[in-house]
Amino acid sequence: MRRYTLLICFILMSAIIDARQIEQYVIFELELKGSSAGNPFTGVQLSAEFRLNNRSLNCDGFYDGDGIYRVRFMPDEPGNWTYITKSNIKELDSKSGSFTCVSAAPGNHGPVKVRNTFDFGYADGTPFYPVGTTCYAWVHQPEELVSETLATLAETAFNKIRMTVMPKNYDVYINNEPPFYPFEGSKEKGWDFSRPNPAFFRNFEQKIIALQKLGIEADVILFHPYDAGKWNLDKMNSEQAVFYLRYLIARIASCRNVWWSMANEYDIMRKSDQEWEKYFRVIQTYDPYSHLCSIHNGMAWYNHSKPWITHLSIQTAYLQDIQDWRELYKKPVIIDECVYEGNIPNDWGNLTPEEMVNRFWISWCRGAYCTHGETYIHPENILWWSKGGKLYGKSPERIAFLHRIMTEAPVEGVYPFHNQWNKETYLIKDREWYLFYYGNSQQATARVMLPKEHRFRLEVIDAWNMTITPVAGEFSGRTEIPLPGRPYVAVRAKVNNEK
Amino acid sequence: MRRYTLLICFILMSAIIDARQIEQYVIFELELKGSSAGNPFTGVQLSAEFRLNNRSLNCDGFYDGDGIYRVRFMPDEPGNWTYITKSNIKELDSKSGSFTCVSAAPGNHGPVKVRNTFDFGYADGTPFYPVGTTCYAWVHQPEELVSETLATLAETAFNKIRMTVMPKNYDVYINNEPPFYPFEGSKEKGWDFSRPNPAFFRNFEQKIIALQKLGIEADVILFHPYDAGKWNLDKMNSEQAVFYLRYLIARIASCRNVWWSMANEYDIMRKSDQEWEKYFRVIQTYDPYSHLCSIHNGMAWYNHSKPWITHLSIQTAYLQDIQDWRELYKKPVIIDECVYEGNIPNDWGNLTPEEMVNRFWISWCRGAYCTHGETYIHPENILWWSKGGKLYGKSPERIAFLHRIMTEAPVEGVYPFHNQWNKETYLIKDREWYLFYYGNSQQATARVMLPKEHRFRLEVIDAWNMTITPVAGEFSGRTEIPLPGRPYVAVRAKVNNEK
Repeated sequence: MRRYTLLICFILMSAIIDARQIEQYVIFELELKGSSAGNPFTGVQLSAEFRLNNRSLNCDGFYDGDGIYRVRFMPDEPGNWTYITKSNIKELDSKSGSFTCVSAAPGNHGPVKVRNTFDFGYADGTPFYPVGTTCYAWVHQPEELVSETLATLAETAFNKIRMTVMPKNYDVYINNEPPFYPFEGSKEKGWDFSRPNPAFFRNFEQKIIALQKLGIEADVILFHPYDAGKWNLDKMNSEQAVFYLRYLIARIASCRNVWWSMANEYDIMRKSDQEWEKYFRVIQTYDPYSHLCSIHNGMAWYNHSKPWITHLSIQTAYLQDIQDWRELYKKPVIIDECVYEGNIPNDWGNLTPEEMVNRFWISWCRGAYCTHGETYIHPENILWWSKGGKLYGKSPERIAFLHRIMTEAPVEGVYPFHNQWNKETYLIKDREWYLFYYGNSQQATARVMLPKEHRFRLEVIDAWNMTITPVAGEFSGRTEIPLPGRPYVAVRAKVNNEK
Repeated sequence: MRRYTLLICFILMSAIIDARQIEQYVIFELELKGSSAGNPFTGVQLSAEFRLNNRSLNCDGFYDGDGIYRVRFMPDEPGNWTYITKSNIKELDSKSGSFTCVSAAPGNHGPVKVRNTFDFGYADGTPFYPVGTTCYAWVHQPEELVSETLATLAETAFNKIRMTVMPKNYDVYINNEPPFYPFEGSKEKGWDFSRPNPAFFRNFEQKIIALQKLGIEADVILFHPYDAGKWNLDKMNSEQAVFYLRYLIARIASCRNVWWSMANEYDIMRKSDQEWEKYFRVIQTYDPYSHLCSIHNGMAWYNHSKPWITHLSIQTAYLQDIQDWRELYKKPVIIDECVYEGNIPNDWGNLTPEEMVNRFWISWCRGAYCTHGETYIHPENILWWSKGGKLYGKSPERIAFLHRIMTEAPVEGVYPFHNQWNKETYLIKDREWYLFYYGNSQQATARVMLPKEHRFRLEVIDAWNMTITPVAGEFSGRTEIPLPGRPYVAVRAKVNNEK
């Protein structure tokens, strides 16, 4: 009798799922009920194979508590997908079904991938120009503050955010208890790293979806060295770490806006290269979508040639090396930390807004992208960089202005050019488009070399005052034009092909 | 009969010279008359051996025109010096005599030498903290402008000046004919590189003596790549170059304030390393005083380990490498070009005054010294950097302020310390004196780690506003004090050993 009931349920359920239309790059979720005996997190293996025509993708499922198992999948192509589950327990095994994936709605461009070796673009081909910010532990703050953070982000141009899975304890600036803990147990009694807390992960993935709605990529930092004995959540052994990674991947890889940042300041954690490699291979194996993946350095330097590194995620205050890194690794470079705008005494958190903006421009003009952070001393100790909240600095609106300039550049064929002295760097699309940025120079004029066979229109861009001023006339060959004589000025030249 | 007359003359002359008292580190000059037949510059060899007790120094003489030969010598030790000439013509050979060298007068500290591996000091032991400027072709300007340059220098703290022997032709900024040419001939007819023009060299050495009176070291640039077909004075062959070097050494090595800078942007001249080595060996052989000696890079990098290099004379805009260079070469480092204060479009001449000053401070705090230059667009095209004249910038008085801070540092035992992130660098004398410079940071407080077993007095130094503000109280261990929250601020800590 029970067997028949289940069969009927299954047929009904399949029919319901069949009827569902799933938008491209949106999560299809298969929910299954099963036994919660023993340790269902580790004792139950569940996965599903999703197939469209001759292509199939395998996704791990996960236990979500209360006898509920889920498999999540992000279809990347419209069509009729079928799936079948595989499990070591009968009630979850061989569940099959299908659903229709329809084309992405406007504004849904899919996950971000590497575009043309050094740049980024969405899966649908739309260029993506990262202008990121850093808000490490915003998901581990009270809900009111989380809402404020999201409201703040909605007002900015930031389209990527660096954020940690685990809560953060750092200096005097952040040490609050998170609303949820990632595992069963406690600091005092010890954590059971084999029993994740679904509420913790549900909270985390809701925040990723909230970012997705704002068009913001979640640069998810899987490990970090900022526990410092407060929770001992960084004390997983190798096997536990692999389990944690697989569990997280199963839960969030289907979010199109996920990027993997293996660790922040990985070298401070003192794991071996072999250990990191093991973790990267877990991502390579179990992330069906090959999300962007990197690792962020402290003082050491990772071998970014490794195939699992899709782009460089660098900490440095010295931007003149960017072009060497491009040449060496042939991958996109993001300067994910170059000191934050703020006024704290720590040497990583006291840039003037002018210099923060300058570093964004320099990074871009050298062929990389830059990431913002804000660390102004705050009466309630809410520093954007770790907790979110409000932004007080002057760089975000200038970064938005730069983002606009980025989107106005030619989509293809732009490359950074630096003269042999490496003091200035320009972006060039041969015979078509030039951007000369003069950084903190106060030069009174600009000399630019334009191709003689074309006529160009010039604009003077003030990166700080956010103005774009056309220069009267048309120009060819060696050209000298007046500048305002203050720092943070650029000249943009566009070919005029009108007869 | 003639022989007797000569003998009497010689005895009389010796007596006169004997009677002369020469101050230590001041030029003793032996003037001899001789034939001017043939080419007396190359045909006549003349030198003199100067002896004090068991030590002797050999000096080349030179032909000064009008049948006059001279041997110049700078005695470095008080006492009764004797000398004897050596020549291939009889009338100049075996002339002997003596003079008394008396101790240096106040203000005369002798030539500058390397002190304690990384620093500089005068021969009498007084520390020398170079704060240099750049005025390449000031000696090749009209006398009125030359006087103005000297008057300007007298008002500054600059104690070293980079200057070329040969006139300079560069871009639109300098291309005037010099008042004298260094050789007989002309651009049109060609130069006779074997016949120096004594008037040219006399003018040059007078300027060096004028600098000496102002307490300024002359960093004499022997070769440079800025002739660019205007005079073809850079077209000497190897043999002619060696002759030129020996002639110049014979004339000016006896000036205590001479430093040898083999070339500016040597690599642009495209001479082989072997050729440069040949020239360095000429200096090693014929400069009896072993004046400071270096070579200034363009884009290439000289092997500063070579024994003839006494210190590094670097062009770079990237100061974070200074400590590596110290470690590698174990020699003093001078950042002789790091872009100049000015507003010209060339990428080497448009620093804000703030950044010029900042680079001086950073250089010093990383264990090096820095050199100024000024390139403001000028209605009469008189840019300090190449022609001298007046200074219009805001950095010189701040550099003077820094020089004062330098002279207040402990004379021994100070070393640069950078944390592993290499973002900040401090000067330290263990348990006694600390200088923390925060560059373009806008941090609101400073955290400093002071030894717990001592009490320190702190001062906040504003490098831009040139103020030194004591902080009330005494401090030990981990200390946090408020800062003005704007760039270019330092904290100085001095131990208080009073009971």
